[in-house]
Amino acid sequence: MTVRIGIIGAGIMGTDHARTLQRSVSGATVTAVADPVQDRARAVAVETGARCFSSAEELIASPFVDAVLIASHDSAHAEQVIGCLEHRKPVLCEKPLAPTVRECQDLVDRQNAITGGIPLISVGFMRRFHPGYRELKARLEEGVVGQALMVLSSHRNVTTSPGGDSASTITNSGIHEIDITAWLLNSAIESVSWHAPRTTALDSSRQDPQVLHLRTADGVLTSVDVFLNARYGYDVRCEVVGETGTVELARPHLTTTSRGLTESRSYAADWRPVFADAYRLQSQAWIDALISGTRPPLATAEDALAATRVAQALVASMNSGGATITINHPQPTVEGSSAGGKLERTPTHVR
Amino acid sequence: MTVRIGIIGAGIMGTDHARTLQRSVSGATVTAVADPVQDRARAVAVETGARCFSSAEELIASPFVDAVLIASHDSAHAEQVIGCLEHRKPVLCEKPLAPTVRECQDLVDRQNAITGGIPLISVGFMRRFHPGYRELKARLEEGVVGQALMVLSSHRNVTTSPGGDSASTITNSGIHEIDITAWLLNSAIESVSWHAPRTTALDSSRQDPQVLHLRTADGVLTSVDVFLNARYGYDVRCEVVGETGTVELARPHLTTTSRGLTESRSYAADWRPVFADAYRLQSQAWIDALISGTRPPLATAEDALAATRVAQALVASMNSGGATITINHPQPTVEGSSAGGKLERTPTHVR
Amino acid sequence: MTVRIGIIGAGIMGTDHARTLQRSVSGATVTAVADPVQDRARAVAVETGARCFSSAEELIASPFVDAVLIASHDSAHAEQVIGCLEHRKPVLCEKPLAPTVRECQDLVDRQNAITGGIPLISVGFMRRFHPGYRELKARLEEGVVGQALMVLSSHRNVTTSPGGDSASTITNSGIHEIDITAWLLNSAIESVSWHAPRTTALDSSRQDPQVLHLRTADGVLTSVDVFLNARYGYDVRCEVVGETGTVELARPHLTTTSRGLTESRSYAADWRPVFADAYRLQSQAWIDALISGTRPPLATAEDALAATRVAQALVASMNSGGATITINHPQPTVEGSSAGGKLERTPTHVR
Amino acid sequence: MTVRIGIIGAGIMGTDHARTLQRSVSGATVTAVADPVQDRARAVAVETGARCFSSAEELIASPFVDAVLIASHDSAHAEQVIGCLEHRKPVLCEKPLAPTVRECQDLVDRQNAITGGIPLISVGFMRRFHPGYRELKARLEEGVVGQALMVLSSHRNVTTSPGGDSASTITNSGIHEIDITAWLLNSAIESVSWHAPRTTALDSSRQDPQVLHLRTADGVLTSVDVFLNARYGYDVRCEVVGETGTVELARPHLTTTSRGLTESRSYAADWRPVFADAYRLQSQAWIDALISGTRPPLATAEDALAATRVAQALVASMNSGGATITINHPQPTVEGSSAGGKLERTPTHVR
Repeated sequence: MTVRIGIIGAGIMGTDHARTLQRSVSGATVTAVADPVQDRARAVAVETGARCFSSAEELIASPFVDAVLIASHDSAHAEQVIGCLEHRKPVLCEKPLAPTVRECQDLVDRQNAITGGIPLISVGFMRRFHPGYRELKARLEEGVVGQALMVLSSHRNVTTSPGGDSASTITNSGIHEIDITAWLLNSAIESVSWHAPRTTALDSSRQDPQVLHLRTADGVLTSVDVFLNARYGYDVRCEVVGETGTVELARPHLTTTSRGLTESRSYAADWRPVFADAYRLQSQAWIDALISGTRPPLATAEDALAATRVAQALVASMNSGGATITINHPQPTVEGSSAGGKLERTPTHVR
Repeated sequence: MTVRIGIIGAGIMGTDHARTLQRSVSGATVTAVADPVQDRARAVAVETGARCFSSAEELIASPFVDAVLIASHDSAHAEQVIGCLEHRKPVLCEKPLAPTVRECQDLVDRQNAITGGIPLISVGFMRRFHPGYRELKARLEEGVVGQALMVLSSHRNVTTSPGGDSASTITNSGIHEIDITAWLLNSAIESVSWHAPRTTALDSSRQDPQVLHLRTADGVLTSVDVFLNARYGYDVRCEVVGETGTVELARPHLTTTSRGLTESRSYAADWRPVFADAYRLQSQAWIDALISGTRPPLATAEDALAATRVAQALVASMNSGGATITINHPQPTVEGSSAGGKLERTPTHVR
Repeated sequence: MTVRIGIIGAGIMGTDHARTLQRSVSGATVTAVADPVQDRARAVAVETGARCFSSAEELIASPFVDAVLIASHDSAHAEQVIGCLEHRKPVLCEKPLAPTVRECQDLVDRQNAITGGIPLISVGFMRRFHPGYRELKARLEEGVVGQALMVLSSHRNVTTSPGGDSASTITNSGIHEIDITAWLLNSAIESVSWHAPRTTALDSSRQDPQVLHLRTADGVLTSVDVFLNARYGYDVRCEVVGETGTVELARPHLTTTSRGLTESRSYAADWRPVFADAYRLQSQAWIDALISGTRPPLATAEDALAATRVAQALVASMNSGGATITINHPQPTVEGSSAGGKLERTPTHVR
Repeated sequence: MTVRIGIIGAGIMGTDHARTLQRSVSGATVTAVADPVQDRARAVAVETGARCFSSAEELIASPFVDAVLIASHDSAHAEQVIGCLEHRKPVLCEKPLAPTVRECQDLVDRQNAITGGIPLISVGFMRRFHPGYRELKARLEEGVVGQALMVLSSHRNVTTSPGGDSASTITNSGIHEIDITAWLLNSAIESVSWHAPRTTALDSSRQDPQVLHLRTADGVLTSVDVFLNARYGYDVRCEVVGETGTVELARPHLTTTSRGLTESRSYAADWRPVFADAYRLQSQAWIDALISGTRPPLATAEDALAATRVAQALVASMNSGGATITINHPQPTVEGSSAGGKLERTPTHVR
């Protein structure tokens, strides 16, 4: 069985997703692509053998599309996800699910109303599929370091793209740390505060770096530095300090070179080499679930809503000089859980 | 287009290959499996949805099989590969292609006779697809360390499986080092010598470890230690020392754990986690080539023949107290080259 | 010329100092030792060939003592330092110089009054002599990472000794981080805040770990976690993140051992092996300065006063639920500077 | 008690030794220096406060010299050591003790004749005092990796100094590896062979690199590559592979810097920073033994003789195309042992 995928958005992310699904994922074929910029859509279509659609709506409605991957502009996500819900098609939406808590909540509510709790929406928090983070979580669950007490993380990019401000640092980049922290610790983030180191002179558009404090329901304090103009390389670090030890992500590199009185290892220039495997495994897990009719083990709409709430609270902390902000997550319903498990029936939209 | 694969041999290797092809490779489906041990074949068939065949011959002949993966006992390889050649079906044969130089030569000759030089045979020297070795080779080719002078490699297994002797250490394990060295340096191995450290008391069936010297046509000396009862972990190392620097494989690990006054990183217990990606990428490259009708970028029958010659020379050195043995590789023909490139016509056997 | 040292306090620290001065420092000899516990004093005396004194006062006054090293109980430091000032004898006092800001200020004032600004007091913030920290500081000063923006540090002990509470974590352990941060950045700490991760169940006497935020006059934010029951090992980390890169302490280890599927490196059980070289180099620098009649390049009484102010501010932050506390350092006088330089005259007390 | 040292040779090595003894070693003072180049001698004399002597003979004979450190040209060592023996003065001679086996043997014989077995001669194989090698040896002796089977070492310099040939690579550089291997394994080297990788084009005066095989009496095979024009940095590696694991020297570095898509660590440009501590500790151990009247725990004349025999055998192997050469070490006498232990009487020459 082959799942026919329609890709909405043919920028860097959409193109990467299309290639991965077409070339490196078992059971998937890219049959459709849509992008307001026709040339970008056409390039992906040529490369994958897909058909170009002139609009996201048409693509979603097409009988040649079993499931949809959304990699369009953040502002378009909500409407496109609603389209997928209305056509009862599974959708993998890039993060953020939607820019605001209100929109995310609306998507969660609509999904509940339309499917009665069967999740059609998955969200691209791909770090959950990164082998390093998975090993880290497995070690924690084996208890090798005892009860977690503190998490120290770093999220460093080489440079910012044009546009963006101090708030978008949180909502676009910090949100990965928010999601992965709750996932690693199996505990919701209940309060946050925002802190500012000296800001780099190399980007006048925002406070950069920022230090985010996240406190989860289990009492663990996570301190994350997010630095978008770190210059030196794309670098993601995470150490969980427990009662009897610590476990941390190893720095990924394949080779070591020695020359000119220096032993050196390369950093990636952006997230793609670091998380290529995570994207592939996330897509494979999504396709596998669609084929087997099980709940996709990806981040859910509820997870995305929770992360967006936390991001908003961090923005509020930033705007109030670093105050501690408490988050009121509503009680999750059983259907909203991200736990796996066989669905009652195979969704009809996968052929 | 989907390539329908028949798997011959449902042991550890065959089962792993079947899973990888079925679950993680785009464009492949496992439709057939054969193994003298019916229960093993049935287990793989159930898991992948393939059909069981009672013999390798039947499987090769089946119209539901476009291409064959051989993971049977070494002694059966040659006959099964011949079957594939006769049915004009592409075959990916696990290493060794065949245990003896004579058999390997016979397979090369038959392929030339049957296909007129179009390679049907690929050989599973999967290290060529390991991202670490590929980065190592890329660095060398970029010239970051200048002309290579010396290679220092280690091949360490945890324990030996029953059976095997000092010669099989070379022909089964050392052969990976032989192939990867010639590939890394783009230079044929022209002479060898064999050296014996103190042997471990933990395996009385063989000299273990062994040190192999391989001298390539470019004058580079490679020293490899092969230690099958290294106990501490599965460990493959490689450093290329050049005129202006060195480049070496990094030790792979995903996380670092600290507890009990120790900072530690895990070794794999065997080759599978270390080379899982290499197997997947090798299979994907094979399938991609079959679909596009291009020459598979895998090790060829000629590469396997060359490696077997070198292994035999090392056995001869061992049997003569460590003498230096010169290898006479015949001039390779154009068809025998492992270089890529579009074939003249798409093989008819892929539907 | 040999400087005759009297050691006050023959506990772990005093014994180590005595051994180092006697065995590994050029130009020093330990001639006197005093400790309320006579047996401890006697043990050190026997080992070094020194003479036992029944009281600190007598030792300080002895004509056979040119300079004094104080490693007694914290509560006794101030009085003993005053004794040294009165006898015009150079003194190296273990940190903390004195437990309270008031006492430290008093010592600074008395030194100014007695010597007119010639520093007799040095304070044992030995990290300033650790080769790793010195290389870190040198790299910063070479500008390899540009303007510093953020410092991330960790201070982890294996277990706490009996006694102590959340405040003593700051005043005894955190104070090292306070001093080294100001020294590394060449900038005074101007405000602080205190943060509490989940506390370990393994020590009910205090909040452990703690996260300390230190903001220096240059705007850099330093985040330090201090974890006294970290269990896994004695571990000190420091990363300075600058505008164009980062520089961090390497983890110190001499060998790597592989066995049992694990590659491992040892942690020290306490600070002594990690900082043995720092103590030796600090003592050597002190002795060299005494012999040459130059200003000792060690932390000064003023440095210790500044660190104590910061520690008290952190305690205040802790007691007020994590509020940001601003520190008012008085303007330093020229004499209070820790800069080196030839003194006007050789102190008469060194023979 | 202070040992008054005379330094013969005021080149790089002699100057470093003089500084270390004067500034960083307890119980030593440099009182005399001699060098045929008067300016060099004078520079050291000024720096240390020592007196210049116009000849090695005068210096050795001086009543103001208790012990002698020889860092002169290799060719002068034997005669100067004989001078020390004749004056019954302890001498620490830089390696090689003497260039030829015959001369070394002569020194051993003379020492036996003159002192009746009490060793006056120590030899500067300083690696034995390197904390890394000491930890490596300690681990082996604790049995953490079981019986040693194989040692893999590398000795890499940045460039050669003018002069020298393929033989001097062995006798000047390789000799360190020879001594440390026998010391690490507590086993004499009994046979050797010499192997040539492709030689670098950057030094036409010698084969470079070289691979040396050393087989110790315990059956362990050591493979050392010695590469004097390695360019990339001064780098010494050593891994001992045992029956149950491996233990290896960690690469020494104090900090890690990240910038420009690269994580990097520095190599030293030559041996001095790497072995500074080893030289200091060796000198301290020598002085401590002189003061306490015990046998110095440094390499002995017998050790140097053994290393020179092995080096000569390697030169013979090189000259015979890599043949395996067996070494006949004479039975060591009790006096020739490098074991420690209290001497019968304190040598009279130390005041």
